[in-house]
Amino acid sequence: MTQPWRDAATKLADVLAVDAVERDQAGNEPVREVELLRHSGLLTLLDTGGWAAANEATRIVAAADASAGHLLGYHYLQLWRAGLFGQPVASEPEWFWAGVSNPLDAALRLTPCGDGFTLEGTKTFATGASVADRLVVSGTRADTAEKLTFVVNARARGVTFTGDWDNIGQRLTASGGVRFSGTRVDADDVLGTQPENPADPRCPRISLAALGFQLMLAQVYVGTALGALDTAAAYTRDRSRAWVLSDVDSADADPYVLAGYGELVATARAAGFAVDAAVTALGQADERGWDLTHEERAEAAIAISGAKVVASRVAVEATSKIFEFTGARATGTKYGLDRFWRNARTLTLHDPVAYKAREVGDHFLRGTRPTLSGYS
Amino acid sequence: MTQPWRDAATKLADVLAVDAVERDQAGNEPVREVELLRHSGLLTLLDTGGWAAANEATRIVAAADASAGHLLGYHYLQLWRAGLFGQPVASEPEWFWAGVSNPLDAALRLTPCGDGFTLEGTKTFATGASVADRLVVSGTRADTAEKLTFVVNARARGVTFTGDWDNIGQRLTASGGVRFSGTRVDADDVLGTQPENPADPRCPRISLAALGFQLMLAQVYVGTALGALDTAAAYTRDRSRAWVLSDVDSADADPYVLAGYGELVATARAAGFAVDAAVTALGQADERGWDLTHEERAEAAIAISGAKVVASRVAVEATSKIFEFTGARATGTKYGLDRFWRNARTLTLHDPVAYKAREVGDHFLRGTRPTLSGYS
Amino acid sequence: MTQPWRDAATKLADVLAVDAVERDQAGNEPVREVELLRHSGLLTLLDTGGWAAANEATRIVAAADASAGHLLGYHYLQLWRAGLFGQPVASEPEWFWAGVSNPLDAALRLTPCGDGFTLEGTKTFATGASVADRLVVSGTRADTAEKLTFVVNARARGVTFTGDWDNIGQRLTASGGVRFSGTRVDADDVLGTQPENPADPRCPRISLAALGFQLMLAQVYVGTALGALDTAAAYTRDRSRAWVLSDVDSADADPYVLAGYGELVATARAAGFAVDAAVTALGQADERGWDLTHEERAEAAIAISGAKVVASRVAVEATSKIFEFTGARATGTKYGLDRFWRNARTLTLHDPVAYKAREVGDHFLRGTRPTLSGYS
Amino acid sequence: MTQPWRDAATKLADVLAVDAVERDQAGNEPVREVELLRHSGLLTLLDTGGWAAANEATRIVAAADASAGHLLGYHYLQLWRAGLFGQPVASEPEWFWAGVSNPLDAALRLTPCGDGFTLEGTKTFATGASVADRLVVSGTRADTAEKLTFVVNARARGVTFTGDWDNIGQRLTASGGVRFSGTRVDADDVLGTQPENPADPRCPRISLAALGFQLMLAQVYVGTALGALDTAAAYTRDRSRAWVLSDVDSADADPYVLAGYGELVATARAAGFAVDAAVTALGQADERGWDLTHEERAEAAIAISGAKVVASRVAVEATSKIFEFTGARATGTKYGLDRFWRNARTLTLHDPVAYKAREVGDHFLRGTRPTLSGYS
Repeated sequence: MTQPWRDAATKLADVLAVDAVERDQAGNEPVREVELLRHSGLLTLLDTGGWAAANEATRIVAAADASAGHLLGYHYLQLWRAGLFGQPVASEPEWFWAGVSNPLDAALRLTPCGDGFTLEGTKTFATGASVADRLVVSGTRADTAEKLTFVVNARARGVTFTGDWDNIGQRLTASGGVRFSGTRVDADDVLGTQPENPADPRCPRISLAALGFQLMLAQVYVGTALGALDTAAAYTRDRSRAWVLSDVDSADADPYVLAGYGELVATARAAGFAVDAAVTALGQADERGWDLTHEERAEAAIAISGAKVVASRVAVEATSKIFEFTGARATGTKYGLDRFWRNARTLTLHDPVAYKAREVGDHFLRGTRPTLSGYS
Repeated sequence: MTQPWRDAATKLADVLAVDAVERDQAGNEPVREVELLRHSGLLTLLDTGGWAAANEATRIVAAADASAGHLLGYHYLQLWRAGLFGQPVASEPEWFWAGVSNPLDAALRLTPCGDGFTLEGTKTFATGASVADRLVVSGTRADTAEKLTFVVNARARGVTFTGDWDNIGQRLTASGGVRFSGTRVDADDVLGTQPENPADPRCPRISLAALGFQLMLAQVYVGTALGALDTAAAYTRDRSRAWVLSDVDSADADPYVLAGYGELVATARAAGFAVDAAVTALGQADERGWDLTHEERAEAAIAISGAKVVASRVAVEATSKIFEFTGARATGTKYGLDRFWRNARTLTLHDPVAYKAREVGDHFLRGTRPTLSGYS
Repeated sequence: MTQPWRDAATKLADVLAVDAVERDQAGNEPVREVELLRHSGLLTLLDTGGWAAANEATRIVAAADASAGHLLGYHYLQLWRAGLFGQPVASEPEWFWAGVSNPLDAALRLTPCGDGFTLEGTKTFATGASVADRLVVSGTRADTAEKLTFVVNARARGVTFTGDWDNIGQRLTASGGVRFSGTRVDADDVLGTQPENPADPRCPRISLAALGFQLMLAQVYVGTALGALDTAAAYTRDRSRAWVLSDVDSADADPYVLAGYGELVATARAAGFAVDAAVTALGQADERGWDLTHEERAEAAIAISGAKVVASRVAVEATSKIFEFTGARATGTKYGLDRFWRNARTLTLHDPVAYKAREVGDHFLRGTRPTLSGYS
Repeated sequence: MTQPWRDAATKLADVLAVDAVERDQAGNEPVREVELLRHSGLLTLLDTGGWAAANEATRIVAAADASAGHLLGYHYLQLWRAGLFGQPVASEPEWFWAGVSNPLDAALRLTPCGDGFTLEGTKTFATGASVADRLVVSGTRADTAEKLTFVVNARARGVTFTGDWDNIGQRLTASGGVRFSGTRVDADDVLGTQPENPADPRCPRISLAALGFQLMLAQVYVGTALGALDTAAAYTRDRSRAWVLSDVDSADADPYVLAGYGELVATARAAGFAVDAAVTALGQADERGWDLTHEERAEAAIAISGAKVVASRVAVEATSKIFEFTGARATGTKYGLDRFWRNARTLTLHDPVAYKAREVGDHFLRGTRPTLSGYS
């Protein structure tokens, strides 16, 4: 199953792993990371390899560096969701894409101006925006109240970044805010209008965007869990000592260490299979184009929510539990083994997992379709 | 994805569900159940639909009746493992197959006699044997100490059943012992000899049999978990009352009930995907034929062990937890909702799950291949 | 710390343990069990040894037989709550007490008649009533709508038992319904009126009754968990075989068995300490008499709810998990090891544990006092 | 239950809480923290209030600052274990005590020299030593191989600190190494010799020291869990927003938040009660003086190990789970909410909890007494 893109992803992961600890501690803007993504050739993978390949590459990169994986996954996601409106999205192979659309903030305002609009407002938590080439942005027309989705050059006049992302995890994702002050949006940059009414026949398809975010998050959770296990395993093999009261000679022969890894590896892999199935489900929904029904959308949504529930649980659990297999000395700051938990803990809070479980349960029990929202 | 066999499995499941509680409580020999299996047309599915279809049918039937699912899964398994030796296995469409091979018992003895052998000895826990048409049996030649696998007509002279299966779960699996007293085994009935030496090039393939058991068990675990959730959900919808101190009007709107189901459904489905992947892995190993290497066998073994770990956990957890979503009255004996836990608890003890987790961990951490045994 | 009552409880537990499996399977009315309680001398322990001793005796008996422990604990509870109204409660040393007060049923009706009342109506789930000497009953006056609590001779005219308790666990608790048809209640039998208004100064004290039920349930949960562990440990020592793929010679040297027991024993004991603290808290609230404030009552309520949460969790978990330490053969019906799970699962559904957790959380987070109800 | 020492501990906790986040991030030597401990008056509490009071004060302080609580608890521990040899231990009210005795390092060497010894060697992980006034140290006589325990002035000639503690948690505990180069130990500073032989009648008592460490660790775990819950609750109340897809108006009314807190609070309190019981058990063992038997010591050891198992589990779980009740913004570095998990995760690795569970299980199942070691 060797594919050039898989090799490229693995190679990039190897490069990122070398100084992942130092980069996490420095917490700089991920300029160099985006440069590495550009040089990896992976930025075009959605086009060249498709949805499943893009997802797998994301997982591989996330295992080495959850921030870089997050950036890459969201890059694919933004390109993919930009395309949902049915118009070609102009991109360049070296362009890195990000988005600006936190549903919990007030909407950005688009004021008609000549053949286009002027954009005003601020959004928080715009992952990758400050290091991006192009942004997929949503805003509301001041005159018609229509919600538009459009493309903005991240270096355009009137675009500034608040640089206020300083969190315990996903530190290299540049997830601070974006301010638009009189930024120009040309008519050509508009991808489409978002349906307001569920009865709008375009609604099921265009609202797939929210599901894409959920899926990509789940993908990064799985990558983070697997990366934590891999990194911890190397520590156990190379550095851990057998416990003095055990009957074994090396830590990697300890019965609790072995079964402990086994439980988590099995659980993380199962979550990975669930995410794979969700990738397929969303891909199939996407292929249905404008024929997609609300019911079909709901099926994909539930596949994704279920995968996100299990991926979220194992990411948080595995990244914390690994220390029980490495021993006390592995808490040395220099090993940076806590970055996996900090990353998993931060990213799994994107939206509350209890409500994803509820969504799955409500569909299972009563056939309820998830509410259309920025998160479901 | 409608397939005739899937319809047949669903139809059989529906029939079995009608009186599953009563049949479990009566605990009779599963004569009628085997009759239903025969009439379902599913007994030939391994031939007509292949390994994946046989597995899915097993899961569907197990969700309705874990004993019947177990019998069906083991029937496929015995036919499949009988074929591992490379010789055609003579069967009839209406024949129900079972096996006699508990690795923890003393070996059965084969004494050469004319053109065949005379078989002596007793084996415990021979699931389905007493209601089977043909048995796949293993024994040791008294003269050469070779281990042979062969077919015995379950109604042959000298075959008696101890009828000592009276356990808290999987009550309808006829898992009692078998005694052979001078039973005739013709040379034609011998499927092959079991390699004693791992260096024997036939070893990786023939030792796949042990993995098949593990996988089929995992399949029934998933079926049991899904069946418990389905049955409990019907109870919640139809009979449960909203808790007096909740803010909701019906039990199926309770936030804890909804999220509770969601967690378990998501986990059970993830286990199902892991088992699906293990089915594929074993299928691929099987297709490698005599070229299969120990390393390739180990990959399949680990996929199966990991799936079994997660399936085992969710089966035991879901079957116990469902009661928290149905409420106290659901403990009425007449509802028989405890059968799922009794089935899951009994069947997940087939061999200790801690050692499966250890196996996965040891392979992950040190690349250790599972020991060749009756369980791995 | 040897006390005569502790010896008596231990002795009774030993007697009950001898045929606990057979009695559970027979599922008869617990006539003989109540006879044993009478002869044990423990029925008067609340008077002679106090609240803490009564609780400990309940736990000891529940470990051997969760039904008998439940009957004994509720006997103490009914005597104790009968006394909350401040009047002496006439009892005899050999009287076994039970109660009739399921808050989810329609209230019983008391029609004034001469110097007393006539009682009409039906209540479900009246644990122990059909084998009791005296019943503590609640009902509503048809004329004034006052809620009275009073004593009824269980053998009085017009008292019949529906005998409809046939559940998967706590089978020997005689928890069926009671029907009153023109049963006479003398004015002397009335213990008091229940305050309707939280502002009634008697309210905090009299509403302690609901907390007593909660605590006694938690007590039986702990007893059940400890009993399951003890019984399983004897099986592991006496009957379990070392797993063939383990490195040990006997099951009781298996690392997973040892740590597995240790986890559960530690957790069950911690739950026991939490219940002990709740016993003290309720005892202190009781001693405050009519001075008890709503705030003080709430503190006791939260101590009890917290203890019930942890006791509930470990009871369900331990009773299911023990099988992983005994092995597959322990699922034989004759060993009856599943009775612990069936008992724990049934009794922990008395009222939903999620709402107890919520209660603790709401008090912790916002200082909310539990709603006054039949369950809090 | 207001006691001056409890007020002092609460007041100190309040002071420490003010800048706990900043101090954790700075990660300086805990000079100021030890100064605060000195001024709190708590350093003499073991003398003035006894073992139980010292333990409770430790828990209170640890809830606000797990490092300071650790330092205080170990201070009591060192004074207490110094006294086990039966000789008065000279201290001053303002002296802060620490110890040097990592059992996994090579022993320090004591070479007789005049009326005393010269001390040589290095020990790692000497919590608090570099900020202490006096150290309790263990070393081996070069001539007789006797193991002595003695007191060293932390500012004495030849005592240097490696300053190599830079770990993800418990950052303010000064847990780096200590090097002794020709340090003078007077005969008067020797507290006693450690029994080498279990048959030595002094052995049970003097080997209590190892249990004291285990208990004090458990105490800090409970404090950390409770502190995390308290701090998170303040965040939930003050800053969290209701989830957009919930039916509630404020985060502190969310059903999952309420029940989530309730589960953890109940579990943490239960662990606290278990630790309380272990405090009592060790206190009773201590009071037995030289009469203490190995069997009695084992009972205390098991009480402590069980408490440590449950305290360890809830500390790691609660400190990670709290984020699900605060929401994503609480991962801001400035809130420092991750310090609780980092502290819990680091400190719970002191020695592997699986072996503590095993110890409890082995005693429960087979009556095995814990091995005498630096950890049991």
